[in-house]
Amino acid sequence: MRMVDLIEKKRDGFELTKEEIQFLINGFTNGEIPDYQMSAFSMAVFFKGMTKEERVHLTEAMVQSGDQIDLSGIEGIKVDKHSTGGVGDTTTLVLAPLVASVGVPVAKMSGRGLGHTGGTIDKLESIKGFHVEITNEEFIDLVNKNKVAVIGQSGNLTPADKKLYALRDVTATVDSIPLIASSIMSKKIAAGADAIVLDVKTGSGAFMKSLEDAKELAKTMVDIGNGVGRKTKAIISDMSQPLGFAVGNALEVKEAIDTLQGQGPEDLYELCLTLGSHMVVLAEKATDYKQAREMLEESIRNGKALESFKTFLAAQGGDALVVDEPSKLPTASYTIAVPAKQTGYVSEITAEIVGLAAMMLGAGRATKESVIDLAVGVVLHKKVGDYVQAGEALVTIHSNNENVQEVIEKIYSAYQLSDKKVVKPTLIYTEIQ
Amino acid sequence: MRMVDLIEKKRDGFELTKEEIQFLINGFTNGEIPDYQMSAFSMAVFFKGMTKEERVHLTEAMVQSGDQIDLSGIEGIKVDKHSTGGVGDTTTLVLAPLVASVGVPVAKMSGRGLGHTGGTIDKLESIKGFHVEITNEEFIDLVNKNKVAVIGQSGNLTPADKKLYALRDVTATVDSIPLIASSIMSKKIAAGADAIVLDVKTGSGAFMKSLEDAKELAKTMVDIGNGVGRKTKAIISDMSQPLGFAVGNALEVKEAIDTLQGQGPEDLYELCLTLGSHMVVLAEKATDYKQAREMLEESIRNGKALESFKTFLAAQGGDALVVDEPSKLPTASYTIAVPAKQTGYVSEITAEIVGLAAMMLGAGRATKESVIDLAVGVVLHKKVGDYVQAGEALVTIHSNNENVQEVIEKIYSAYQLSDKKVVKPTLIYTEIQ
Repeated sequence: MRMVDLIEKKRDGFELTKEEIQFLINGFTNGEIPDYQMSAFSMAVFFKGMTKEERVHLTEAMVQSGDQIDLSGIEGIKVDKHSTGGVGDTTTLVLAPLVASVGVPVAKMSGRGLGHTGGTIDKLESIKGFHVEITNEEFIDLVNKNKVAVIGQSGNLTPADKKLYALRDVTATVDSIPLIASSIMSKKIAAGADAIVLDVKTGSGAFMKSLEDAKELAKTMVDIGNGVGRKTKAIISDMSQPLGFAVGNALEVKEAIDTLQGQGPEDLYELCLTLGSHMVVLAEKATDYKQAREMLEESIRNGKALESFKTFLAAQGGDALVVDEPSKLPTASYTIAVPAKQTGYVSEITAEIVGLAAMMLGAGRATKESVIDLAVGVVLHKKVGDYVQAGEALVTIHSNNENVQEVIEKIYSAYQLSDKKVVKPTLIYTEIQ
Repeated sequence: MRMVDLIEKKRDGFELTKEEIQFLINGFTNGEIPDYQMSAFSMAVFFKGMTKEERVHLTEAMVQSGDQIDLSGIEGIKVDKHSTGGVGDTTTLVLAPLVASVGVPVAKMSGRGLGHTGGTIDKLESIKGFHVEITNEEFIDLVNKNKVAVIGQSGNLTPADKKLYALRDVTATVDSIPLIASSIMSKKIAAGADAIVLDVKTGSGAFMKSLEDAKELAKTMVDIGNGVGRKTKAIISDMSQPLGFAVGNALEVKEAIDTLQGQGPEDLYELCLTLGSHMVVLAEKATDYKQAREMLEESIRNGKALESFKTFLAAQGGDALVVDEPSKLPTASYTIAVPAKQTGYVSEITAEIVGLAAMMLGAGRATKESVIDLAVGVVLHKKVGDYVQAGEALVTIHSNNENVQEVIEKIYSAYQLSDKKVVKPTLIYTEIQ
């Protein structure tokens, strides 16, 4: 088998076999197939796509390119959740203790990553003493005991995907739905998920700007998941504005605590209940979505969800008291309100610009070496559709630097106000299965 | 400027500027732009093509990537000829002395290359004493004196093209007309041609299988040539069967001698007169095609063409006596006739298979290291449309090895016979300017 023939086959629109895709991914991973052939292949995939079968084979080959996490020591069906990313997405912090509180095992492997704010681990490290440096045995024991634990990424998961992603990034072949989908799914599957709930974001703040593209990506991932024998479900949710109010690490932990008490932002609460209910169904802890949702709502009402969060934090060395006293979380030196310049209805909040503002404050990483400031970020007071009077605060900036003029300007450039009443955007567009 | 942005621009169908193409070719040549980006770019070009302006800029950038031959010391308009290659193509051996005999300066830089038979230099080396190791000064003096000389490739011509071609070869991006056209044209231009006549082959034995593709390639090259200020003309000629009768090095020299005396194969003679007449017109030695053709026919009739060949050979150390006594050329130990198994009309001779047969005998190079046997090859006795009786020779094999069973089988698989009369294929389809 020669790689040049496989490139030509794809270029000319033919379907590759399972063996051909394995040859290609194995050769690329071990360095026998050079980058210049893989990048030409990726560009051919950009133009010609991949069939359903090819995507499944590609995902499986990437899973098999490295280690796979063995979660068989955990009782029950392990359901993982993946969000395609956006701004102010606090869902994992809420969902993990929430679904654990109704008996769904949550064995979360998480990273730090680059972005407007830190990853789940960075956010959790806002809580004094909390750490993810635990052994695999401790991790599995904790999930069996408390139904939820988080561990840092270890092992050599999907090296093919890591290498391919780095190559796609510099060869203009990122925007290919089959390649995006197999990249995401291979990581989830290698991490040991039995079932997967996907939250595919759409809108100006998301990678998939159009609803149509988001649906295609969601359907592609669901087909891959089911194709490799993992029950998979997706929803399409709105990212035309930031989710919730808080964008920042400790600020999002505070928001997660509020949400677990039923006092969080309406959109974050609704999205968590939707995703959570699907997770509970896939974990076979409820027979249908309605029953699952009632279980979760009850768990929030009776305090079990919040209790689950405390137990989880304490089990990994964290100061669970912050849940009752959020003032113990890292706090920024300055809080600066950004007042509306005019009266009207908020018609747009460009999520990417709000994310950039948080990043300028130090909430996220631009490079792997960046140090995150856990205390800083922005809290929105007005969302799309809200009425605001001139002088009323649109946003509060939490900063450790007094000079935030540039950040304020970013905020103003993110917000659009209109004289006319504005309809709130739909939060959840559709389900894909 | 970032290469990834240029790849994306091409991928999305936009036109690159002159500066962008220069950046890309310069960066690739000096190693700043890695192969994996260039291969992704080439695949994007495969799918999206290039505009007329982009092709001109690409060709110019490749010409400027290395040395350019200065032929200004040669009087008159230097016209080069390029054929896109096929099987049994002896045109250069005939054309060089033929057009020189009417005063057109032919300053030929030639290589050895890979293929079914050797390159022009290999063929000429069938003549005892002939050599191309001459200095640039000698080369220019010889052209001024005799109007024709051949020199081996020297200098660092179009390194961008060499590097790009090697990359395209292993990334399934060879079959792109803008890339093929700029590759060919950049070499001709760097070699110092003032004007160029192109012989684009079409048919089963050619790179361009369809007439439509051949026309597109020809038009693309003509536009590039004229776009960079070199008068360029193309014809489309048939390569559905081998050209002429001989496929082999010394065998083709013999055939060239026959043709220069007006006794060569009809198709080779006609093609040489057509290409030669266009060369004479571009060199401004005749006012129109008709006049040019009459000059060339007269030169063959009165022996000047053959004389020009002798002078040329002798000037570069060759034994010019072979022209009168071709038996002095290298001769194979065995000549084996391949008889027709049935009576009928030849309906097809697959040129590639005949070429392969010559290669099996040792006439060509499979790798750069292969040693060529100048004596061997095949001579066709029957061409498409010819009537043949069972037992009559289709082909004579010239071999230095007695055992030619496999070669005979190849010949049989190349020839198709039909009971019905077969029309001879058109030799010259059209002119492109």
